[in-house]
Amino acid sequence: MTPLRLHYAPDNASLCVRLALLRAGVPFETVLVDRRTRAQKAPAHLAVNPNGLIPALETPQGPIWETGAILLWLADRHGADLAPAPDHPDRGAVLAWLFWLSNTLHPALRILFYPETHVAGDPAPLVARTRDRIAAMLDILEDGTPRLGPWLGGERSSILDCYLGPMLRWLALYPQGATGWFDLARWPRLLAVARRMDARPETAAASAAEGLGPTPFSAPVLPSPPEGSPL
Amino acid sequence: MTPLRLHYAPDNASLCVRLALLRAGVPFETVLVDRRTRAQKAPAHLAVNPNGLIPALETPQGPIWETGAILLWLADRHGADLAPAPDHPDRGAVLAWLFWLSNTLHPALRILFYPETHVAGDPAPLVARTRDRIAAMLDILEDGTPRLGPWLGGERSSILDCYLGPMLRWLALYPQGATGWFDLARWPRLLAVARRMDARPETAAASAAEGLGPTPFSAPVLPSPPEGSPL
Repeated sequence: MTPLRLHYAPDNASLCVRLALLRAGVPFETVLVDRRTRAQKAPAHLAVNPNGLIPALETPQGPIWETGAILLWLADRHGADLAPAPDHPDRGAVLAWLFWLSNTLHPALRILFYPETHVAGDPAPLVARTRDRIAAMLDILEDGTPRLGPWLGGERSSILDCYLGPMLRWLALYPQGATGWFDLARWPRLLAVARRMDARPETAAASAAEGLGPTPFSAPVLPSPPEGSPL
Repeated sequence: MTPLRLHYAPDNASLCVRLALLRAGVPFETVLVDRRTRAQKAPAHLAVNPNGLIPALETPQGPIWETGAILLWLADRHGADLAPAPDHPDRGAVLAWLFWLSNTLHPALRILFYPETHVAGDPAPLVARTRDRIAAMLDILEDGTPRLGPWLGGERSSILDCYLGPMLRWLALYPQGATGWFDLARWPRLLAVARRMDARPETAAASAAEGLGPTPFSAPVLPSPPEGSPL
């Protein structure tokens, strides 16, 4: 059978998928997408993700893209308690937060990191408001965390952990030199999620592969990837 | 058993869920959220959606929110070919486009309709760039449609149809007086999706409930809802 093949760049959204693949113990290969040559916009990559974004996952049934979609597909196909099964009573709540991470928090991060693609002219007013919006989003997630039980910050990582951990990391690191507004300690439950993620074996393996250091989620430093470029 | 209870406002994102509920033939009740009194931000609604947004669906296992999450939950629980089952070969592709509708197209529409919540000061540069981004997104979807087979614009509506149809409608109608840039005829396959949606029995039922007229997706007019307010 064709193995799963993850198209990735270090410290990109593909990190969420790598964590889930490692956590599930599924064999997979990686294909480096060279951001320095904008390989994500080249025909070879557009064939696996028509949006020209990272990640994509090649599967025996064809390519899948969108981080949230890949995570959910992996959870449903490869189990390992990455998410509640479709008939589990917690399924609805986990889907709600998964889509929220994907369509509320993640798009706000994209505005923060790439404001010039979202607005013509001076991006400062857009960035300022986006920071405020992200802080309000994290307040909502902090409040919602207790009701998620084992599915966020639990003993084993779920697809919510795999998605949230990297986003908390990126908020602390990017854009370089403009992260003074963000302090994860303001959200103690989310800090606890990041610390649990740091201690997991799949984090050590992902960190080695992408050069993320020993505490990539709770106290991150800029990456030193063995291959490829995060930007 | 507690029935499903849809918290809705006419011509809001709850329309996507109503279409799916009607298509699946699942009994449900509705709870009007009065936008004129900002009831979506009141404690009663925050208890079913902590983001203060519409829709939410109360289920026997608790409330679900996020349009994409509710649609997928309904498809997996109530079947009726609203989406490929988790072990179906088309599952990955449908999940990819479902998340894309939720985290790429839908957030861009939110910026277009509520720019003042996204940027401080003059929203015009944000709106201009957002229109361009939405047009580019629809180009990508137009290209991707043939590979989706029966799951977009097919004989029976899928959760992708239920999500996309209303978004095409809103682009033609909102914000009122500023929609001259949008012409669905520019994307012939998406226009065909809208026309098929218009002809379906669940569309007639939803249109009657929310006052959407006879061709709500391919040639929409502003709604005249029997109760509640779209804005």
